[in-house]
Amino acid sequence: MSFTIEAIHGAARAGVLRTAHGDVRTPAFMPVGTKGTVKTLLPSEVRALGADVILGNTYHLHLRPGEDVIEELGGLHAFTGWDGPILTDSGGFQVFSLRDTLARVDDEGVTFRSVYDGATERLTPERVAEIQRRLGSDVAMCLDICPPAGVPRAEHAEAVRRTQLWAERQVGAPRAPGQLRFGIAQGGTDPELRSSSIEGVVALPFDGFALGGLAVGESREAMLETVGWAAPMLPEARPRYFMGLGDAEGILEVIARGIDMFDCVLPTRTARTGSALTARGRLNLRNARFARDSRPLEDGCGCPACAGFSRAFVRHLVNQRELLGLRLLTLHNLWFTLRLTAGARDAITRGAFDAYRADTLAALAAGPEEETWQP
Amino acid sequence: MSFTIEAIHGAARAGVLRTAHGDVRTPAFMPVGTKGTVKTLLPSEVRALGADVILGNTYHLHLRPGEDVIEELGGLHAFTGWDGPILTDSGGFQVFSLRDTLARVDDEGVTFRSVYDGATERLTPERVAEIQRRLGSDVAMCLDICPPAGVPRAEHAEAVRRTQLWAERQVGAPRAPGQLRFGIAQGGTDPELRSSSIEGVVALPFDGFALGGLAVGESREAMLETVGWAAPMLPEARPRYFMGLGDAEGILEVIARGIDMFDCVLPTRTARTGSALTARGRLNLRNARFARDSRPLEDGCGCPACAGFSRAFVRHLVNQRELLGLRLLTLHNLWFTLRLTAGARDAITRGAFDAYRADTLAALAAGPEEETWQP
Repeated sequence: MSFTIEAIHGAARAGVLRTAHGDVRTPAFMPVGTKGTVKTLLPSEVRALGADVILGNTYHLHLRPGEDVIEELGGLHAFTGWDGPILTDSGGFQVFSLRDTLARVDDEGVTFRSVYDGATERLTPERVAEIQRRLGSDVAMCLDICPPAGVPRAEHAEAVRRTQLWAERQVGAPRAPGQLRFGIAQGGTDPELRSSSIEGVVALPFDGFALGGLAVGESREAMLETVGWAAPMLPEARPRYFMGLGDAEGILEVIARGIDMFDCVLPTRTARTGSALTARGRLNLRNARFARDSRPLEDGCGCPACAGFSRAFVRHLVNQRELLGLRLLTLHNLWFTLRLTAGARDAITRGAFDAYRADTLAALAAGPEEETWQP
Repeated sequence: MSFTIEAIHGAARAGVLRTAHGDVRTPAFMPVGTKGTVKTLLPSEVRALGADVILGNTYHLHLRPGEDVIEELGGLHAFTGWDGPILTDSGGFQVFSLRDTLARVDDEGVTFRSVYDGATERLTPERVAEIQRRLGSDVAMCLDICPPAGVPRAEHAEAVRRTQLWAERQVGAPRAPGQLRFGIAQGGTDPELRSSSIEGVVALPFDGFALGGLAVGESREAMLETVGWAAPMLPEARPRYFMGLGDAEGILEVIARGIDMFDCVLPTRTARTGSALTARGRLNLRNARFARDSRPLEDGCGCPACAGFSRAFVRHLVNQRELLGLRLLTLHNLWFTLRLTAGARDAITRGAFDAYRADTLAALAAGPEEETWQP
């Protein structure tokens, strides 16, 4: 078994997932490297931020440069220079979220048009497994159907049925040496559909299980209520992955409900809009009040951006569309998010997670510090 | 005296320029950090590439974020995080190359519209000195008039006259503690005008002298012929700076004629177009022949890009507009250019510069290596 739980506090768990390319300490936030790169950063920088695992995107890597190229160059690790664990999503989320390009879904798979050149493409569970085998990722996700919130119940039901059909076909497909494979439950926030999806997927011999189709537009309350009863339905001895969650409050709340892994573009995308994540909320560096602010993005932060640069300089870079500005904010935002999960892990181990969560959420709710600097 | 010549080979010189923020080993290529950042790179990376000095742009930094902000944040070094020597150009090149925004030139100074917001701005020699004093750069260039090649002789003559007028006013203006100030000769490739400009400026007590208004559109032959007789007219004991030159052949040829310093956006701008500089010419990474090429950008190169990444990966990043691609090419191209000048310095010291120049130019002329890889 590749997953070890080291401590439990309430429903929150601290563990280690062993993969072919190293250990993942959980709870783990996975920076997103859609196209084989965590945007703007070198692999060595991502590692230095404390990330144990990054996420790659099967859809995008299949279309560009293609798994044949990546396999020929030695697999995704050698190709990208990231030698730690990589989880590859299935491409299902992209196919179904890029709705304009979706051509046809049937029980066999899904046909869509490439966002790159409009070419007709087909993904099936077997094909997704094969692409991921050739990419050589450490954790391969199943092909699933992820409807947005608010679609008719029948659409959710159909997504659950086909996701299960596909899981049954993908679970036994050939995989890369040492590659783990995770199943995915769908069903939105509908108790019956979500339960049925979980029951179906956990009956299959996957190495871990994910909740998909949450944080896709439903309310935070409905999402947390669902995770609250759904997470405990997932096998205790397997890693539990909440797909697509990256805000501090959300991360802490799902950790509290027994989730071990998450990924999200939020920290990196927020950086590229010119904003910094801090313990007391976001700072939009475009705001004129930072023009002469000599403080780091966040007081006491140990990230490479805060170690050497002022808010005023980052603001200048962002305003001038200098790529270094995006880089510094990306470094900071990932550091912030990775410290948050590392802090949660430590707190769980110490039996102090409830206090850690309460303190962190209280600081966030308090909002930005009193501005001591005056223009 | 802040400049020491350590070795001479033919007309080529190896020396050290001492500044308030450290030594500059010459011949020195100065990476361009127009807006206070060498595009995409951290100051620590620029230093690790072997750069002794970077260039900042008075025009752009004056307009954004403004010398008042930079001064308040502790000066250009503290603001940008680059603690080594900084040379600031005068802004003259920008004012005169952005011709659409040029409003009026008179003997007092120049009026133009800001490229940022269209506001009317005025630069005079005294104002440029004051801006640079507040920026706190280590070497401040005089305000000059830089006509493009091909303008009527009368325009060159007027540029020479006003550049001299302004030099006489700027040479004695207040400066930052330890700040060096360089005068600039204009005159295009016209022997009489160029000679007269040099004679005028070298009569003033500057710490170094620059040839401006070359490599601005005239032929390479005409440029080299001019440098050939103009460089020896500059004081032997002062650093000689050729403004705006960054290709390997050009650099070696002007070193051979007695030039000590150069700057150019070529290595960094070429990177952003997706091309790598190598000892055997440029590689356009967009070319399909690199799609599966597992070699580094340049065999045997010690740069951070070549140490970890293949041409195939860089090509993928460039094609996907991933900023890491621009970063890797920037690192490589600056490394290449800085190694070239470091190699020249070493060769001068060993009395072997002629052979170094001949070998380097022969490799460049030979063109790309035989492609051993087949698609």
